[in-house]
Amino acid sequence: MTWGIISTWQMSLSGVAKAAEQLDSGRPSGDAIQTAIEDVESNPAFKSVGYGGLPNAEGTVEMDAAFMNGDTLSIGAVAALHDFAHPIAIARNLSHEQLNNFLVGSGADDYAQRHGFTGKNMLTTDMQRYWGKQVRKNATRHDVLNTHDTVSAISLDYRGRLHTGTSTTGIFMKAKGRVGDAPLPGAGFYCDNQVAGVVTTGLGEDLMKGMLPIRINELIRNGATPQEACNQVVYPFVDALYQRSGHIGAVSVIALDKKGDWGVATNTAFTFVVATDQLAPTIFKAERGKNNTTVIDEKNV
Amino acid sequence: MTWGIISTWQMSLSGVAKAAEQLDSGRPSGDAIQTAIEDVESNPAFKSVGYGGLPNAEGTVEMDAAFMNGDTLSIGAVAALHDFAHPIAIARNLSHEQLNNFLVGSGADDYAQRHGFTGKNMLTTDMQRYWGKQVRKNATRHDVLNTHDTVSAISLDYRGRLHTGTSTTGIFMKAKGRVGDAPLPGAGFYCDNQVAGVVTTGLGEDLMKGMLPIRINELIRNGATPQEACNQVVYPFVDALYQRSGHIGAVSVIALDKKGDWGVATNTAFTFVVATDQLAPTIFKAERGKNNTTVIDEKNV
Repeated sequence: MTWGIISTWQMSLSGVAKAAEQLDSGRPSGDAIQTAIEDVESNPAFKSVGYGGLPNAEGTVEMDAAFMNGDTLSIGAVAALHDFAHPIAIARNLSHEQLNNFLVGSGADDYAQRHGFTGKNMLTTDMQRYWGKQVRKNATRHDVLNTHDTVSAISLDYRGRLHTGTSTTGIFMKAKGRVGDAPLPGAGFYCDNQVAGVVTTGLGEDLMKGMLPIRINELIRNGATPQEACNQVVYPFVDALYQRSGHIGAVSVIALDKKGDWGVATNTAFTFVVATDQLAPTIFKAERGKNNTTVIDEKNV
Repeated sequence: MTWGIISTWQMSLSGVAKAAEQLDSGRPSGDAIQTAIEDVESNPAFKSVGYGGLPNAEGTVEMDAAFMNGDTLSIGAVAALHDFAHPIAIARNLSHEQLNNFLVGSGADDYAQRHGFTGKNMLTTDMQRYWGKQVRKNATRHDVLNTHDTVSAISLDYRGRLHTGTSTTGIFMKAKGRVGDAPLPGAGFYCDNQVAGVVTTGLGEDLMKGMLPIRINELIRNGATPQEACNQVVYPFVDALYQRSGHIGAVSVIALDKKGDWGVATNTAFTFVVATDQLAPTIFKAERGKNNTTVIDEKNV
């Protein structure tokens, strides 16, 4: 048996490295996911996730996160959560509840408080200054975030357990209470031990229309490799949505199946990190190739 | 060309009748959906939707709703919305926005206020009394709601346009901020003019694991009839989830394809309403049959 972890964007390198050590030493996949995501949530250098992440249009940091267990299909999710250090830990806790697994806004805050999660002012003074500057110069969301976005990860442990995790502060100038794809089952993530885990990053409003993770999961269940499934679902969708609605946001998807094989598809310049029992943590870059294929290269750092 | 509308639970009969008149006279599908759902939202007799619906565990009415346009795939959704008369109308308005289509909690309230939607105290004194009584006798959610739940509808107009709509106040004693399947794309609804509309009702926490609407839509796209697709997706899912997690909530699904053919599958005693250019508004009941089939009968009223 093998283990593996794959995560969106170069920013997840150090978290993936920590999680890979855990997986290698036999720790369960759910712990590895939490470790990988919390590392990004803690780092104020990353403007799209957790501490130091972008506030919404009113200047308030609101965070979305989700956790899925591929054995039981249990899901935990939060949206528009305020001022807690680790949204992914709260989402994981919610996945253990029998009911009320997806909580939003002040309901999510109350749950986190009641369950002893660490409160933390997530708006840094650096971000406050940066955000004010962007607002004053009427920056667009494309100006503000283009090399990173939601952290979304999939892990597989020695015992064949798959988990997914996602965490984000969302798009620049998002409305108060806006929910993206990150906490949405089937749109931002899906995970089934018998098949694969699949996660996305990009423009939530378009990812909701695509429902790519569950569709990719279904193709893998029917025999496609993760790479075939990513190519076959993502490229026809982005082309069709562009034709139908006249615009398409960034869409990137990664998949890791129960055997440890992975795949990726993207309509933008996308980086991601992979570690397995065969491969030390490595940054890859991907872009769309010809005929609905994906061009993947190791990124020189 | 034909027209049709199908909606969950017997309670939607009068709304479907009004919507059917609109469709018959050539009004667009999006208007018909809003009409059908608003009728249920307005009626205090129905404890699971809109005015007179169940409050959450803290005694506050929080409402979820969504609207999807099968032409553009545009989605609008609200969750944990407070004190507005018609959540479906707010969701429809959100589906016209370029971004920020899914809003929750006070962010959803602020949007509705800013856009001139009618504020209304949605907690009736009758419901307040009823709810208090149920809480005092430690009623379960099964005691409180069993013959109706989320109103979820699909409509098709003469011009081949499909829309879906959903609206609910959620399960008895739900946590503050809890989100069910109703506002979740792919889990509570999905709609594509080129294929079909599909909607669900039942236990949101389990429907999120199943992602039935998008999976049924994919099967219909690949040539299954709506009834075949509902049977093939719903029954294996409910059986597998029961095996894997040891419990399964109520799950009911209806689908209406672009030709006006419809299908249904359910693991509980389920009623729904259909009207087409060939059929006056009619209540049907459905239950699971042998070998992954569905037994459907006209309900005598």
